[in-house]
Amino acid sequence: MQDDFFGMHWMLATPFDADEQVDTASIPRLVGKAREAGCRGVVALGVTGEAARLTDKERTLVAQTVLDASDGLPVTLGTTAPGTRVAIERSREAQELGAAAVMISAPSMQKPNLDALLGHYQRIADAVDLPIVVQDYPQTSGVSMPPAFVARLAETVPSARYLKLEDPPTPTKISAIRDLIGDRMGIFGGLGGVFLLDELARGSIGAMTGFAYPEVLVQVCRHMVEGDRRKAEEVFYRHLPLIQFEGQEGIGLSIRKAALHHRGLISTPTVRHPGAGVAEKTRRELLDLIETLGL
Amino acid sequence: MQDDFFGMHWMLATPFDADEQVDTASIPRLVGKAREAGCRGVVALGVTGEAARLTDKERTLVAQTVLDASDGLPVTLGTTAPGTRVAIERSREAQELGAAAVMISAPSMQKPNLDALLGHYQRIADAVDLPIVVQDYPQTSGVSMPPAFVARLAETVPSARYLKLEDPPTPTKISAIRDLIGDRMGIFGGLGGVFLLDELARGSIGAMTGFAYPEVLVQVCRHMVEGDRRKAEEVFYRHLPLIQFEGQEGIGLSIRKAALHHRGLISTPTVRHPGAGVAEKTRRELLDLIETLGL
Amino acid sequence: MQDDFFGMHWMLATPFDADEQVDTASIPRLVGKAREAGCRGVVALGVTGEAARLTDKERTLVAQTVLDASDGLPVTLGTTAPGTRVAIERSREAQELGAAAVMISAPSMQKPNLDALLGHYQRIADAVDLPIVVQDYPQTSGVSMPPAFVARLAETVPSARYLKLEDPPTPTKISAIRDLIGDRMGIFGGLGGVFLLDELARGSIGAMTGFAYPEVLVQVCRHMVEGDRRKAEEVFYRHLPLIQFEGQEGIGLSIRKAALHHRGLISTPTVRHPGAGVAEKTRRELLDLIETLGL
Amino acid sequence: MQDDFFGMHWMLATPFDADEQVDTASIPRLVGKAREAGCRGVVALGVTGEAARLTDKERTLVAQTVLDASDGLPVTLGTTAPGTRVAIERSREAQELGAAAVMISAPSMQKPNLDALLGHYQRIADAVDLPIVVQDYPQTSGVSMPPAFVARLAETVPSARYLKLEDPPTPTKISAIRDLIGDRMGIFGGLGGVFLLDELARGSIGAMTGFAYPEVLVQVCRHMVEGDRRKAEEVFYRHLPLIQFEGQEGIGLSIRKAALHHRGLISTPTVRHPGAGVAEKTRRELLDLIETLGL
Repeated sequence: MQDDFFGMHWMLATPFDADEQVDTASIPRLVGKAREAGCRGVVALGVTGEAARLTDKERTLVAQTVLDASDGLPVTLGTTAPGTRVAIERSREAQELGAAAVMISAPSMQKPNLDALLGHYQRIADAVDLPIVVQDYPQTSGVSMPPAFVARLAETVPSARYLKLEDPPTPTKISAIRDLIGDRMGIFGGLGGVFLLDELARGSIGAMTGFAYPEVLVQVCRHMVEGDRRKAEEVFYRHLPLIQFEGQEGIGLSIRKAALHHRGLISTPTVRHPGAGVAEKTRRELLDLIETLGL
Repeated sequence: MQDDFFGMHWMLATPFDADEQVDTASIPRLVGKAREAGCRGVVALGVTGEAARLTDKERTLVAQTVLDASDGLPVTLGTTAPGTRVAIERSREAQELGAAAVMISAPSMQKPNLDALLGHYQRIADAVDLPIVVQDYPQTSGVSMPPAFVARLAETVPSARYLKLEDPPTPTKISAIRDLIGDRMGIFGGLGGVFLLDELARGSIGAMTGFAYPEVLVQVCRHMVEGDRRKAEEVFYRHLPLIQFEGQEGIGLSIRKAALHHRGLISTPTVRHPGAGVAEKTRRELLDLIETLGL
Repeated sequence: MQDDFFGMHWMLATPFDADEQVDTASIPRLVGKAREAGCRGVVALGVTGEAARLTDKERTLVAQTVLDASDGLPVTLGTTAPGTRVAIERSREAQELGAAAVMISAPSMQKPNLDALLGHYQRIADAVDLPIVVQDYPQTSGVSMPPAFVARLAETVPSARYLKLEDPPTPTKISAIRDLIGDRMGIFGGLGGVFLLDELARGSIGAMTGFAYPEVLVQVCRHMVEGDRRKAEEVFYRHLPLIQFEGQEGIGLSIRKAALHHRGLISTPTVRHPGAGVAEKTRRELLDLIETLGL
Repeated sequence: MQDDFFGMHWMLATPFDADEQVDTASIPRLVGKAREAGCRGVVALGVTGEAARLTDKERTLVAQTVLDASDGLPVTLGTTAPGTRVAIERSREAQELGAAAVMISAPSMQKPNLDALLGHYQRIADAVDLPIVVQDYPQTSGVSMPPAFVARLAETVPSARYLKLEDPPTPTKISAIRDLIGDRMGIFGGLGGVFLLDELARGSIGAMTGFAYPEVLVQVCRHMVEGDRRKAEEVFYRHLPLIQFEGQEGIGLSIRKAALHHRGLISTPTVRHPGAGVAEKTRRELLDLIETLGL
């Protein structure tokens, strides 16, 4: 079942012009790069997409533009919201627009409450027909999902078919979840791909992440599927310095956008305020590293 | 200057029907109660208003309905957003709709950065002509504003004329800020009014809070203005058990809405999921307390 | 079973001289006040006792001095530690010194892990014969204990006979726990007594807290035991302004020590650095409030 | 001035036997490995040393044993404590025992307060003659030190000569601090060495970290000093997979101890409870990686 989605799904940045307006013209280039790189799908309106910094109208615009450019490539749309009702509304819209799945993180809760969280996913599942990618990202949501909760979710909400796991140590958590529910949920890695190799070895079915060179992660996934761990290692370890450089806490998105801009995929590296643009020293380090790696 | 706004501004709950739809019909009753209670103004779309759980369209609907019912009572609109651009867009809309001020909390930042935060307020101030009520609520925003930052903000952004202070111990912080900038900013208390008396004694100019019986807080403000501390104490201490009961962490909003419902001000006590409704035992404790206090 | 401990246990401050040295001479005065006030016991080396700011030798000195002064009054000793082994060592020492019980909070864990936490209590229980008071104080420990975990703890670790509950809303959590395990664990309130009345109404068996006027809380407990809710309310509500004033976040301990000093129970109000002493304005507010209440 | 300390200082694990007792016999092997690897010094009683899980007596025992084995290699001792007085007492003991420096993190504070933090370091500096390594590790201490605070600290407390920087993105913060104070403070990287190369390029003077193969980091430092960035990159990037594997959040110490055990440096990989030992799958991944790298 999970095989449909096996592989690398590229989290799309939302391109902005220098004035921080959504730059829809760059979106097809990003989607095209995903296809060209061999990605299994794309994901729009996640953290990488600065979804929280968009108006509802801009969210719809971005989603529509991505879908228009997708040409059959499955599009997962982030529909996370601070409340259930808005998450449902966004998920229904995603379904109408033609998304293949919705990705939903835990809503912020003053006191984390796993029963209420289960109800959140249950209600959304009742309202839409799409599979749900549950995003487990406590650093952003403030909510931890123990493996036992994930198992309960898989049992109670059958359409919660995928987990985007961003709660390190991710390889350990993949094993803990699979010990409980086997492959009833397909688990994707995230976090820029920094643990991709070990995640795949522990049984993840790919990654949903926005690393600026998705073709690298696609290759790693392929070699692992073909059972060629050594080749996967070779590719992964060679690019790990860049994966890790891009993943720097607090400035990762600005580095990622600088790389995408360097690749000619987006017209400016603008991040919406109060997110900061990349500092000049950091940008030079990035370009040096890209050159060193021959990318 | 601050005198314009001196007093009690009632934070309005957003009423929902049993199906969690915005119940616009109850809004005029809330606004009417504020006027009848002697409030200096109302504030919509804050935490009490569950603003984060509304779509952009619903925000506009609520704002419009409050303004339509205001009949001259100054309306402050919450325009907090996770990014500067959306905060600007919301603030511009507030201005067009006829708000008297906008209230804006710090946006969530992966790494709190006070320079970026200053830039946030600066850009919003450049974009609208309304006074800004800076909401200092670290428990919700994750961002602490030391008194020195508040002073810098007051100097750099003249339209940041008010501070809604919800960073305890609030009386201590009021003194620390006033030692730095005198009354260049008018400081309001919040937090359900739980420190109102000491805040006023330290130089706050009132409160912006959603306690279900605003007439009580209005009285306290009046007695203090008239220099009658004993009367203020008498009123405040008598009602403190209810103020404190309502302020219970994690369930405060559900208690508040239960009280508003009990008063006939909103048609249902519904809180949007995953926020929980009031538990039956808690509701009975609330009603007993209201009766004990003769409210 | 829990009846042995029913009532008010006073959390003892650790008195320091002006040079921040432990002032053992004041300790018997504190213990004497607890007895005179009708407390059921005292608790040393908790958060109020600034235990984390003492050396191991000072901890032993304080414990010994309290026990020497106790004259039959049950003494609970805080033996919380960042690791299990040290908690065991401290608990064994408590037993040797003659403590009636040990009070233990969750150790800090980089990633909260309830299985490891259960093991923590289990190992301690295996090593000592004293009843354990489990302190549930997430704001300090960083670890949340859901009611289902408390139930599991009660079942697995029979000597974990008491819970000191400081996870608001406490009345709600008392009911949730009692629904699961009845009165298999005796639940104490804490948090300065700020929810004492509702906690008792929900089935707590008293409080373990350091409010500077324990006789007030003793009275509230007595009236509730006698079934005289109105009298309990009368006493509790009258003193709530002081209970709440003392409980101010971040400065509560300095206020408490100022009050103890005002009562002549400790020779200086010194708090160990970096804890701050009470500010002059706050001290005057405190004294005014004490006078207003006729204490 | 900082040159005295330039280079790699190895953070020592505290070895335990299977019963979690301090295994002093392994300590000289660790110190010997540091010397053999070309480290500039060792650091005992840090987070890697599980210092918080030791009794005061055990701390002294470990410190004494490390110093006895040091044979002239500079030993820095961690003397972090939750309060100033205990930090002073520990620092004085470190001085008496013959330490070359003390390393001190921010104490936990209910409300982070930079003035109190400055006072903390000032008082310690007044009490001992050793240079202070200020540990900037907000994930553990809960306290953030903005670059402007570090500059103020360097000016006010001259003996605070070194900064152990563990607040990512560390390269960016190194530049920000050096822009303010030049090289008035020597900055060390930490965090297992994961950003060592960029940190050195930005002006750090080495690292204080516990990566199980310190000789690798020593080599990287040397190549950078010799101006051979390409060789430094070659060594660093080759070992980055292991550096990163070891750094996994929440389980890093157990992996590190498993590697030290594998190297024959400690007699058991035991971590004190509630810290967990390494899981079998993780251990096998570790050994495979060590083999792949030819270590």
